[in-house]
Amino acid sequence: MIIGLLGFGTIGAGVYELARQQQNLQVRYVLDIREIGVPELTHQISDILEDPEVDTVVEVLGGLHPSYEFVSAALRAGKNVVTANKYLVATYFEELTALARKTGAAFRCTAAVGGGIGWLTALERVKRVEPVLSIEGIMNGTTNYILSNMARNGLDFKTALSEAQALGYAEADPSADIDGLDILHKLLLSANVAFDVALPVEEIPVFGIRNLTDDDVWSFKSRGLVCKMLGVARREGAQVAAYVQPTLLPEQSLTAAVPSNFNLISYETEYSGRMSFYGQGAGRYPTAANVVQDCLDLQNGVKNFYTLEGARVSLNNELAHYRYYLRTKSSRSREVREETLGDGVLTKPLSVAQMSALMKTLKGEDGQAFAAAVQAWE
Amino acid sequence: MIIGLLGFGTIGAGVYELARQQQNLQVRYVLDIREIGVPELTHQISDILEDPEVDTVVEVLGGLHPSYEFVSAALRAGKNVVTANKYLVATYFEELTALARKTGAAFRCTAAVGGGIGWLTALERVKRVEPVLSIEGIMNGTTNYILSNMARNGLDFKTALSEAQALGYAEADPSADIDGLDILHKLLLSANVAFDVALPVEEIPVFGIRNLTDDDVWSFKSRGLVCKMLGVARREGAQVAAYVQPTLLPEQSLTAAVPSNFNLISYETEYSGRMSFYGQGAGRYPTAANVVQDCLDLQNGVKNFYTLEGARVSLNNELAHYRYYLRTKSSRSREVREETLGDGVLTKPLSVAQMSALMKTLKGEDGQAFAAAVQAWE
Repeated sequence: MIIGLLGFGTIGAGVYELARQQQNLQVRYVLDIREIGVPELTHQISDILEDPEVDTVVEVLGGLHPSYEFVSAALRAGKNVVTANKYLVATYFEELTALARKTGAAFRCTAAVGGGIGWLTALERVKRVEPVLSIEGIMNGTTNYILSNMARNGLDFKTALSEAQALGYAEADPSADIDGLDILHKLLLSANVAFDVALPVEEIPVFGIRNLTDDDVWSFKSRGLVCKMLGVARREGAQVAAYVQPTLLPEQSLTAAVPSNFNLISYETEYSGRMSFYGQGAGRYPTAANVVQDCLDLQNGVKNFYTLEGARVSLNNELAHYRYYLRTKSSRSREVREETLGDGVLTKPLSVAQMSALMKTLKGEDGQAFAAAVQAWE
Repeated sequence: MIIGLLGFGTIGAGVYELARQQQNLQVRYVLDIREIGVPELTHQISDILEDPEVDTVVEVLGGLHPSYEFVSAALRAGKNVVTANKYLVATYFEELTALARKTGAAFRCTAAVGGGIGWLTALERVKRVEPVLSIEGIMNGTTNYILSNMARNGLDFKTALSEAQALGYAEADPSADIDGLDILHKLLLSANVAFDVALPVEEIPVFGIRNLTDDDVWSFKSRGLVCKMLGVARREGAQVAAYVQPTLLPEQSLTAAVPSNFNLISYETEYSGRMSFYGQGAGRYPTAANVVQDCLDLQNGVKNFYTLEGARVSLNNELAHYRYYLRTKSSRSREVREETLGDGVLTKPLSVAQMSALMKTLKGEDGQAFAAAVQAWE
């Protein structure tokens, strides 16, 4: 396999190092705008696209542009693409997978979800034999670090976030993590692979933890509950419920016990029941190792795992119901209130679709509103 | 793929059902001594061995004989073998893998460890890119059910065992589970795959939980410790430490939180760190699903994962040290005693090899002696 590597940042340098240890992988080009000290350096994407011996392009630039243009061009040129870029794949899922099918190129992104866990590959494997019924889990280490730190050490949100930033777990602009967009992308890719669908990313409800207060956390604790950010998707026939939301779990549950910046992701299948994967989700080597695993899988004849051969399914978040903790200054909370909890209320059971509509309305009235689903079972 | 299925018990019937759902798998023969109502039934192994169109033999008879004779004959005939029989593979590991290499047949047993988890396949995959440093975990649902029940509900050993038997988690003769032999076989297969070795099964120390008392459990609890049965293997250069022992873990740890008959198995690799797999380890469908997964992998060109290409390594349990809880009437416990804990003592740090020698000596003096390693970290 002769590789054009796009990007030589943290992940790219890891891929470069691990790929060199593989007999059958040769990195012929490294594309970077900087003058990095590797002999394979080029500043021209055309060097890679126009070299007929390059069969595989590995994209670890991150971001949407020029990743999108480069990956599209590579697929159009019939070259296989391996990427760790969840933002790219989630945003252009249908277009890129259609392009790959059209030109016969392979397209893989195992490293995009769960870093070292190999989660998408595991989903791909299990669904060969039995239908996946649901997926669920802690898919973002940054928010789990913040939530753990608030729950265990009584920190307020800002302090917990600052600590995560100081440790390099959170970016200077943490929005993608704390508003749930990173989880949204991972959930979308997981659901698409698990259920052979292409869900509309912009229609999946996402509630973040930006507005969570230490008083909220204290109220949860008084009821034996721990707040975790979960991505959830469940298929019922031709419909899929999918959503990202802070979720209150019993403190004895395994999910509630996930510490620091760890991930815990589970699938449930028709015959084998629930299976969970636990590990640190990100970092140079776990991500780079999974990129190299994708290259080896390609070499062994595995192609896309985005088959999309099944019937189209629709997103329906009326399928899922929860009681919610809702804290807002808006008087609308009275309409759904069942009892009081700390500064907020516990609502009557609402569908995720109803809650999503309510949160959209509240956004204009109360920029500090916070909601979390209550999941008193596992 | 045309399959000869050996055995139509719980697992065999599951394999039969799941294989029929696969377009490319055809079960042509089902070997069973009983008159079961399937059209593929035969009582003659020769029907399968002498049919040149049967390319794969699936062995789910269990036990050593006639499984050993049938599997050997199938491999000698150049037929691929897929088995869920850990006892068979662990006992004849070198012989059967050598036979498969000689005739070019594939030989896989993913279902032998961790039931639905696909653990051996995950190990096989990860080691393509990075060395595995260690494996560790709860590999037996029966003992975990007993230990959880003793710790959480204060039951004594016999009552907890009876409950496990009533629920079908434990056999009428529970020895293989409670004396650790089931874990020994799983650990051996895991270590052999992870480290490309062939460890001597009879030299690996195994301490069981047969002699554990509710007073012991109470003493552990007073120190914030929970007892779990662990299989552990760690490679250091050309040496491997491998052992099965009851282990005392801090009650807040994730491993200590594993409930009921669940398994939690982890590997640690050079680049990606620790990764854990959590699920129910056994049962008809999880095991059958993994057998069928092995068949599909064979069909996709995957062969043995028992490469044994590396240098020979030796077993060395001087590499691992623990303090032990030891309860025995023998005066020998005074020689290793550092402090008292309940009915027993906490020893000074001992190597697993030393403790193994001591337990062998004690066996003659005190049939009720019990030992557990203290692992005060994760």
